[in-house]
Amino acid sequence: MSYIKFSYEQLKNLCTDAFFKFGFTEKESEIITDVLLLADLYGVKSHGTQRLARYHKSIENDTIKINAKPQIVFETPVSAVIDGNGGMGQLISHFAMNLAIEKAGKTGMAMVSVRNSNHYGIAGYYTKMACDAGFIGISTTNSESIAVHTNSKQAILGSNPIAFAMPADPYPFWFDAATTVVPRGRLEVYNKESKPIPEGWGVGEDGKTSTDAQHVLDCITKKSDGGILVMGGNTEEMGSHKGYGYSMICEILSAITSFGATSNHHVRKKGQGAGSCHSFIVINPGIFGDADLMKKNLSAFLQELRDAKRANPDIPIYTHGEKEIYSKEKMMKEGIPVNISTVAEIIELCNYVGLDSKQYLGDVDVSGAKLIDNDKVYK
Amino acid sequence: MSYIKFSYEQLKNLCTDAFFKFGFTEKESEIITDVLLLADLYGVKSHGTQRLARYHKSIENDTIKINAKPQIVFETPVSAVIDGNGGMGQLISHFAMNLAIEKAGKTGMAMVSVRNSNHYGIAGYYTKMACDAGFIGISTTNSESIAVHTNSKQAILGSNPIAFAMPADPYPFWFDAATTVVPRGRLEVYNKESKPIPEGWGVGEDGKTSTDAQHVLDCITKKSDGGILVMGGNTEEMGSHKGYGYSMICEILSAITSFGATSNHHVRKKGQGAGSCHSFIVINPGIFGDADLMKKNLSAFLQELRDAKRANPDIPIYTHGEKEIYSKEKMMKEGIPVNISTVAEIIELCNYVGLDSKQYLGDVDVSGAKLIDNDKVYK
Repeated sequence: MSYIKFSYEQLKNLCTDAFFKFGFTEKESEIITDVLLLADLYGVKSHGTQRLARYHKSIENDTIKINAKPQIVFETPVSAVIDGNGGMGQLISHFAMNLAIEKAGKTGMAMVSVRNSNHYGIAGYYTKMACDAGFIGISTTNSESIAVHTNSKQAILGSNPIAFAMPADPYPFWFDAATTVVPRGRLEVYNKESKPIPEGWGVGEDGKTSTDAQHVLDCITKKSDGGILVMGGNTEEMGSHKGYGYSMICEILSAITSFGATSNHHVRKKGQGAGSCHSFIVINPGIFGDADLMKKNLSAFLQELRDAKRANPDIPIYTHGEKEIYSKEKMMKEGIPVNISTVAEIIELCNYVGLDSKQYLGDVDVSGAKLIDNDKVYK
Repeated sequence: MSYIKFSYEQLKNLCTDAFFKFGFTEKESEIITDVLLLADLYGVKSHGTQRLARYHKSIENDTIKINAKPQIVFETPVSAVIDGNGGMGQLISHFAMNLAIEKAGKTGMAMVSVRNSNHYGIAGYYTKMACDAGFIGISTTNSESIAVHTNSKQAILGSNPIAFAMPADPYPFWFDAATTVVPRGRLEVYNKESKPIPEGWGVGEDGKTSTDAQHVLDCITKKSDGGILVMGGNTEEMGSHKGYGYSMICEILSAITSFGATSNHHVRKKGQGAGSCHSFIVINPGIFGDADLMKKNLSAFLQELRDAKRANPDIPIYTHGEKEIYSKEKMMKEGIPVNISTVAEIIELCNYVGLDSKQYLGDVDVSGAKLIDNDKVYK
């Protein structure tokens, strides 16, 4: 697949103006763009600029409601439940995490849970907000049902990421991962390359392991039986019940505490929000004593892990969030690679909403591009 | 391996009197026994009665200090840090979880972290305490270094379980699992049965996959390179970085927030506590609104998971904690199976501390028993 590189500023300006065109305020457009571009900079392509057209489609379907405002429906000094009213996931979540940070700043720890939201981007964006404020941040979200739990052949659980971040030097501990063995996007990559997927990633309608990426993806799209496996695959021998457990913790923190929809009750209907639920937990390290010493201790421990004896002398050992920092530094210098199919889609989208794509992206050659979604977005 | 069944009362009386003989008070002996026997009843043999002799050995070595009392060294309305002073893990942890429950009862949520403790039994005992009080309970502990992280061949991390429980009907959601792909005890079982372990469970000194259980166990015992792999094995393809991440969350919550020893700094020296660290988090569901409705919603969701279409019609789908309830019901009726090597060890221990084992266990035949530890406990 070929890529074209754009500067951070180019993509930032384009996305901000695009969201403004979609109907968001200037401030809102900046927030959404910031979430998308952090994903790009951190190398999580599936959650970056390539979502622009998908979000626009949801807005056109009124699944994402432009004018919906997050509403606090229950509150204590350490908690809140927010009804997202079907608004943009990033805006609701930015509001919710700020509320959790504010509460934790006063009480020491806090949890805010959210219902009736939409896709919120990378979970780790919000934990980074807490981390940048000097706090431990935790975030979870549920999603569309794609994951098959132990001994089941029916996808009930979502990709259900858990993110956790804590300040450290020279870079924070920043963990963000789906509780499925792989995210859906990884199957899409294997599919495009016509490669069989490894055993233990997915099952077909019969509940048996499938190494055919297209087959597993079709199961998810058609909402038939089958789907992606939770971490640990489908046998307890490799820890399937553990992945299933982490996914459940995600559902409980996100959907159960917010009185919202578990992944199997999310909807994809015109005029209705997806029903996504999230959680945001913030802990002020100061509630345990000297926060500076704690940061120093964590930094030293992370260094011990990086300095451990390598299984292969040529392969370095990383701590979580380290690769993302390198990726960001590299892309800020060399540009952000966007695959040409996404570029072509963005150009179409710009034409559609009345933006001059050349003003942002310059003159680019997208011959060879093919639209990624089966259903073409702009006809 | 052959087993002898004893009633819950038999083992309870024996353990309580044994711990009293070791030097604990009557009340303390009851608490420790309760933690051990819940493990037996829930089918987690490795953490039940079979630990009796090992704990006694640690007490004789002054690694577990009989008279040490947990000490609150830092405190806020939502938190505390406890120095265990090298005392018995179960007593320190029982105290810590009660403190977290008390604080969460007042503020809505609380976290207590513990340093300088010893092995605390099953993590899920403490989350059950919170759950029995109507709260969400979370607990983590670190341990001796046994786990090799992604791209490393050096065991730095512990088995590092994460436990999470929340009230539901007809039984709570109760999850408790090591963040390694399997616990050490599972390798011991394969070793006794001379079976090769599956690829992806452990690596040898060279950092390469080993299917030889004895080899991997030797690596851990000798503190050479090699060890058990974190969940997801040793490749990112199967999610190794995720297991590594969950294990890190465990270290952070347990050791970093308590200013204690990460797993790689635990000690096994005569006269010093192991250095184990734990965390206890309690969330009152009432801080999100109607706790009864929340319980009802979770119960309904758990039922949906159990009712999902089965991959194999003959294999039922469980939710976490369900099997443990069945195990407990069965054992309360039919007795708790204890393997004869453990029974033989307990009889020797009774003789050693001056208890009449027959008074508790009756006349049992332990011919064929062999002591489990390489170093015989009572000579």
